[in-house]
Formats: sequence, structure tokens, C-alpha cells
Amino acid sequence: MNYPFSDSLNLLSKVLQKLPGIGPKSALRLSMFLLNAPDKSIANLLADNLSVAIKNTNKCQFCRILSDEKLCNICNSKTRDKNILCIVETAFDALAIEDTGCYQGRYFVLLGKLSPIDGIGPEEIGVNLLASHLKSAEITEIIIATSYTIEGEVTANYISSLAANYNIKVSRIAEGVPVGGELEYLDGATLMRALNRRKEVCPENL
Amino acid sequence: MNYPFSDSLNLLSKVLQKLPGIGPKSALRLSMFLLNAPDKSIANLLADNLSVAIKNTNKCQFCRILSDEKLCNICNSKTRDKNILCIVETAFDALAIEDTGCYQGRYFVLLGKLSPIDGIGPEEIGVNLLASHLKSAEITEIIIATSYTIEGEVTANYISSLAANYNIKVSRIAEGVPVGGELEYLDGATLMRALNRRKEVCPENL
Repeated sequence: MNYPFSDSLNLLSKVLQKLPGIGPKSALRLSMFLLNAPDKSIANLLADNLSVAIKNTNKCQFCRILSDEKLCNICNSKTRDKNILCIVETAFDALAIEDTGCYQGRYFVLLGKLSPIDGIGPEEIGVNLLASHLKSAEITEIIIATSYTIEGEVTANYISSLAANYNIKVSRIAEGVPVGGELEYLDGATLMRALNRRKEVCPENL
Repeated sequence: MNYPFSDSLNLLSKVLQKLPGIGPKSALRLSMFLLNAPDKSIANLLADNLSVAIKNTNKCQFCRILSDEKLCNICNSKTRDKNILCIVETAFDALAIEDTGCYQGRYFVLLGKLSPIDGIGPEEIGVNLLASHLKSAEITEIIIATSYTIEGEVTANYISSLAANYNIKVSRIAEGVPVGGELEYLDGATLMRALNRRKEVCPENL
């Protein structure tokens, strides 16, 4: 979608189109919204905050979460268990696990999942850094919490075989019927795995 | 939605939330996407293009469309009819009319519609500039093409009464059944107006 009155607005719109979930029309609408405000106040505010964020944020040297410090709050915390590492695809996944309040270890963020077709190989998901963490004697257990998509599973397998080189306990988060999930509406693949991995009900556990 | 690892990312995310159609979670996702890319390339690209666009774009001095020049392509064109002015709410509306190829006059963009509850009064929609255009003898006809919403109609009425002070022909784009519109699915208000404004079919026009 081309805006015939301003090349610089078109260029801005083209950059905005690179962002996830923003198509040609939304990008043009956003550009016009930014530049139409009185005194271009929102555009200036965005430019300023963007520059500050570019300058201040870095990937945490341990877990690769975006942080203002060299080590993020979690990696820097003295109360977290340093022996256990949860491997997730994105910082959002780490935040979701944090919200459950049931995990006290550290994280490692892959910032993606293996997908050769998109040019994402082991290097892109930080395998070198992960291997150096696994090599150190500190970590004794990893929990692989990548998604149950094809790429997520490939990534999980890759990391499992990497961890096999070191004497580390490896687990993968469970798959099955989600809480509140109605069987009637569940996809066949999930249901099949839920059946295959059924758990025996011990009377003493009831 | 708060990101516990970086204040500067949170601030960026808060600015992005001011944009139309971007909620707290999208804003955080966009911020992370911008800053996670290798060398922060997309964030830098956006910052650069935004600065250029802030510097280069201005509202056209005649029609208020965002343009790199003092007068936009349309207002500056020698082939456009200078006697007729089409009044629209946004540059998108002007582009939509341009796409039909059936209008050869100039535009005036209100950049909104009268809505006292949102603090948008006559000054915000550029009535002073519009009045100075109407005062000049050049314009002999205006077409009011604001939307058929309550605010759009109020704006249209306001502009009609403004134009009544000058000896100018005023028209409003027609309302009725859209092309391809099935009566069965049309809302009652549109159908009622389409009935009220029915056109006599002259046999000689068939």
C-alpha cells in the first residue's frame, strides 16, 4: 500500500510492516497516527523512548532475557535455586511460568526454536552459551519447556542430546489435556498422547 | 502488563500502547521483537526512519494531508479542478475517493470529526483554514464526504452551515444500499433512509 504524498512516510510505514502482526494498511495507519498528532508529540515520544531502550537494554549474560542490567533480576537473585535450569523459547514463556509461582530455578531463553527453513540453527538459539552453562558443575537438572509444536519438539530433542554429554537430569514439561479442557473439543493428537501417557490411579493417592 | 527485567523496555512498551489497535500485550511483544533482533537492527531502522519522517513531513498548507512538500501532489497539480473541494475525515478517505478515479477536484482533510466528548472541536478539524478557503472566490462547490456516523453527520451539518455564509454550492455524498449489498443483511437505519430517498425510475433512463 503506497501513500502518494510523502516518501518519508512510506519508508516509515515499510519499517513498521516488519513488525509482527502489522500489515501494510495498519503500518500506514500507524505512521499517519504518529505524524498527525499535534507537534508530532507521539512520534517524538516514541523516537526518544526507542533510543533509550536501544542504548539501555541488553541480553542477560546468563539467560538471554532482555534486561537493563548485565544479569537480569532472576539470575542475579540470591534466593533462586542455581542447580536447576528451565529452558524456554521466549521471555513470555518464562513470565508465564513465573506467574504460576511454582518454579524457583533460573531460566535459559532460546529466543526462538530450531527451524532451518527460517535460517534458525543451533547458534541462533544460543546453544554455545547453554553448553557452557551445562559444562559448569553448578547445574544438575534441566527442564525443557519448549512448545509442543514440530519445531519445539525438534529443539527439545536437540537440547536433550546435548545434555546427554554431561551428567544432567533432563525432563520435559508434561503434555495432555489442559485444565478445564473439554475432551469433545480437544484435537486428536493431544487426546492420543493423553491416552498413551495415562497415569495409573493409585487408591492411596485419592 | 509489566516486564520485570527492564524499565526502559517498559517505557517503550507504554508509548507503543498509545498507538491505535495496540494493547498492553502486543506492545510488550513489539518492544521485545524490536530489541531482540541481532544488533537491534530493526529498532535502529525504526528510530532512523522515524526521525527522518518527523523532520520531513508536514501538513499540506492547503488540504492538511501529510506531505513531504509544502503543498501535496494533488493541491500542487495543474490538472485538478480548483473550483471544487471534497471534505473528508482522513487521508485514507481521500485515497479511497482517488481510487475510484471519478473525482478531479481538491480535498480538505479534517483529521477527525467533531466530538466534544473527546475534546475535538471546530479548531481541531481545521475550520479556520477551511473558512479561509471558502472565503476566497476560487471555490464554488463543496462535497461533504464525512462518514454517516453521528459525529460525521454533526460535522457535515456544521460545515454546511459554515458554507451557507458564502455563495457556495454544497452537497453531501449519497447514502443508501451499497453495491453488492443484500437487503436481507442490511441494517434497519440504512434501509429506512434508502426507502425515504428512493429515486424515481424514468423509462427514458433505462
